Amino acid sequence: MRSPKTTIAAATALLARRLDELGRVTDEPGRLTRTFLSQAMEQANLVVGDWMKEAGMSVREDDTGNLIGRLEPKNAAAKTLLLGSHLDTVRNAGRFDGALGVVLPIVALAELKRRDVELPFAVEVLGFSEEEAVRFAGAYIGSKAYTGTLRAADLKLRDGRGNTLREVIEAHAGRPFVLPRAAHARKNLLGYVEVHIEQGPVLEDKGLAVGVVSAIASQTRGRITFRGKAGHAGTTPMSLRRDALAGAAEFVLAVEAFGRATRNLVATVGTAQVPGGAANVIPGEAIVSLDVRHPDDATCARAVKDLVQHAQTIARRRKLGFVWEQTMSHAATPCDAELNRALAASVRAVQGPCPVLVSGAGHDAVVVSRIAPVAMLFVRCREGLSHHPDEFASPKDLGVALEVVVDLLQRLAAEHA
Amino acid sequence: MRSPKTTIAAATALLARRLDELGRVTDEPGRLTRTFLSQAMEQANLVVGDWMKEAGMSVREDDTGNLIGRLEPKNAAAKTLLLGSHLDTVRNAGRFDGALGVVLPIVALAELKRRDVELPFAVEVLGFSEEEAVRFAGAYIGSKAYTGTLRAADLKLRDGRGNTLREVIEAHAGRPFVLPRAAHARKNLLGYVEVHIEQGPVLEDKGLAVGVVSAIASQTRGRITFRGKAGHAGTTPMSLRRDALAGAAEFVLAVEAFGRATRNLVATVGTAQVPGGAANVIPGEAIVSLDVRHPDDATCARAVKDLVQHAQTIARRRKLGFVWEQTMSHAATPCDAELNRALAASVRAVQGPCPVLVSGAGHDAVVVSRIAPVAMLFVRCREGLSHHPDEFASPKDLGVALEVVVDLLQRLAAEHA
Repeated sequence: MRSPKTTIAAATALLARRLDELGRVTDEPGRLTRTFLSQAMEQANLVVGDWMKEAGMSVREDDTGNLIGRLEPKNAAAKTLLLGSHLDTVRNAGRFDGALGVVLPIVALAELKRRDVELPFAVEVLGFSEEEAVRFAGAYIGSKAYTGTLRAADLKLRDGRGNTLREVIEAHAGRPFVLPRAAHARKNLLGYVEVHIEQGPVLEDKGLAVGVVSAIASQTRGRITFRGKAGHAGTTPMSLRRDALAGAAEFVLAVEAFGRATRNLVATVGTAQVPGGAANVIPGEAIVSLDVRHPDDATCARAVKDLVQHAQTIARRRKLGFVWEQTMSHAATPCDAELNRALAASVRAVQGPCPVLVSGAGHDAVVVSRIAPVAMLFVRCREGLSHHPDEFASPKDLGVALEVVVDLLQRLAAEHA
Repeated sequence: MRSPKTTIAAATALLARRLDELGRVTDEPGRLTRTFLSQAMEQANLVVGDWMKEAGMSVREDDTGNLIGRLEPKNAAAKTLLLGSHLDTVRNAGRFDGALGVVLPIVALAELKRRDVELPFAVEVLGFSEEEAVRFAGAYIGSKAYTGTLRAADLKLRDGRGNTLREVIEAHAGRPFVLPRAAHARKNLLGYVEVHIEQGPVLEDKGLAVGVVSAIASQTRGRITFRGKAGHAGTTPMSLRRDALAGAAEFVLAVEAFGRATRNLVATVGTAQVPGGAANVIPGEAIVSLDVRHPDDATCARAVKDLVQHAQTIARRRKLGFVWEQTMSHAATPCDAELNRALAASVRAVQGPCPVLVSGAGHDAVVVSRIAPVAMLFVRCREGLSHHPDEFASPKDLGVALEVVVDLLQRLAAEHA
């Protein structure tokens, strides 16, 4: 019998090969794109479904294209542990975002099977059919359907060809679609664990392969308009100007300073526009975006309030008009303390240090948290890059993540034995 | 015989009526637009030409559509004084920019005729055919042709229909076009006086109707690109960002502070762009314009150099890439000291205080300065507004400007008697 070290190395190589293979299943020749219920998604479900079967799972697909592999326990009354992520991608995507969180647990379960480890709970590996909001403007169709939180309004969304979500689902399923209930009741679930590339530079900066997510951040987004007075850049003295862009510039720097001064806060002005602007015209209007995220709802809300007040102060001092429009606000999703304790123990066992990160991006775990405690394992990705063909997690880091999940499954097995 | 006061009031009313009338001569129904050699420009030349004849002038039009009214002196060897501005407009223009500087001298000369004042020099009133660069991208076609500074390269410019400037001129003139020499040798000219609305708020701020221009400012224009690193706004901590927009914002404020700290300098960032920007993406690139003007060439050049160096310092500190591209640079045109002394004396006689302004905008006087000493009289316009249908100079202010020009002509007559 081979040592766990040897088999993990082989399993890691298998994981890397499978991510490569899955990365070639695409709707667009020459680049990776898989969108909700497309041909490539059907093909991906076939490929990944085969890997699930090989690991001993029964495989089904629900009406919304979610791929569900299930490993039954000896005790039919045992609870279920969920592991997964999404199989759809953005256009011209990398091959790790989403796919990693589906393929890694399959390989981990195969590894446990090889080690003759039997789990005292059921496991479902989930390949959600939609998370990236590419075909329809609403995201999380897959995890919403699985958790029974898809709504009638969602079904009216239209894709680029004018087909509604309902029409697309029904054409795929070959039958009328009824909004599904949750696949499981909360009391029957041990939790949901999602492995995902970090999509940020923190782990790379720390020189570590994996980290545990404490929470998926609260997020508020909006737009601020400063209104001054357009004027001739050559004939209006500095003292008589009401320059909207200068006000916006003060705000951009205030947002940056505020973000730097507040632990775990990220605050970003991502866009700036000067409508009707020209090199020889004093800006009469300037519009900037604001995006604020923090693991704690109250801190996020207070930061937004402080920043908007600060913008107002700038506007008043500069005699500028001022409008704040909030366009989006999500509460934070805290990860489950108990699951995280187990996950952190596994990270310490495999890696040594256990960094704790906040996820600034949304994930399927946000939706699944409505029916289960959730935890996330982040994997270092090169230069924090995602949503790009150069997205990359090294085989070495994949190996660490795989070992952590194998360790976690054994740890949970021991706890629930 | 009526008193000068009474006749000036009547002349002012006539001036205001004529500006209204000319403001209705347009290429576009419902708004004022007159472009180079258009139907409305032909019509404007007919209308204004009649007013010139009424004032005793002989009238001609050159091949480029410049309208030239000439009042011959008794002494055929006497020099010529030029007075004028342009008769073309921007699209959806006001009725004062340009037109005022053509119609006012005609009314002033008619007033002197009424007073039986005979001038010991010739006078030409010039209605230049093009200053606003609307039909062709190059400006000052009229004054360049008049001063013999139109170049073969200018004739290759194309309008929106693809016709070259040469083709358009030849179709209008009905004969082959030869680049003209200057209408006058410098030694035969007393000078050029242009009356123009201020297009800025300084006179309004001072509560005065007119002011004398000391110089038409030196101007440099360019574009600065800051390059940072695009990244996920949710997952990249503040400490690991290289935000191009934050760098640009620092620069915008530095430009404003620099402009405020330097007498007579105006410095403007009129545009800001974040290519590929989105609310949830850290700006990877930000592009801003820079426009710097000062009456003194060296001060303008030094300001641009200092600001570009400052931008470079910001970029270095923030680890941003940096590119400066200069797109335009004009030397200053100082107004003639002797002409200005006479003009200022007339302003003091009529108005009392004589404010001295720098013109931040370009004018026909810049081009005419190549063959004659130039001076400009600025007239207050409401809220500094120009290039807009709401552009407005009050009848009272028009009256002051008219009295100043009448006084100036008499003053110069006395000096050259």
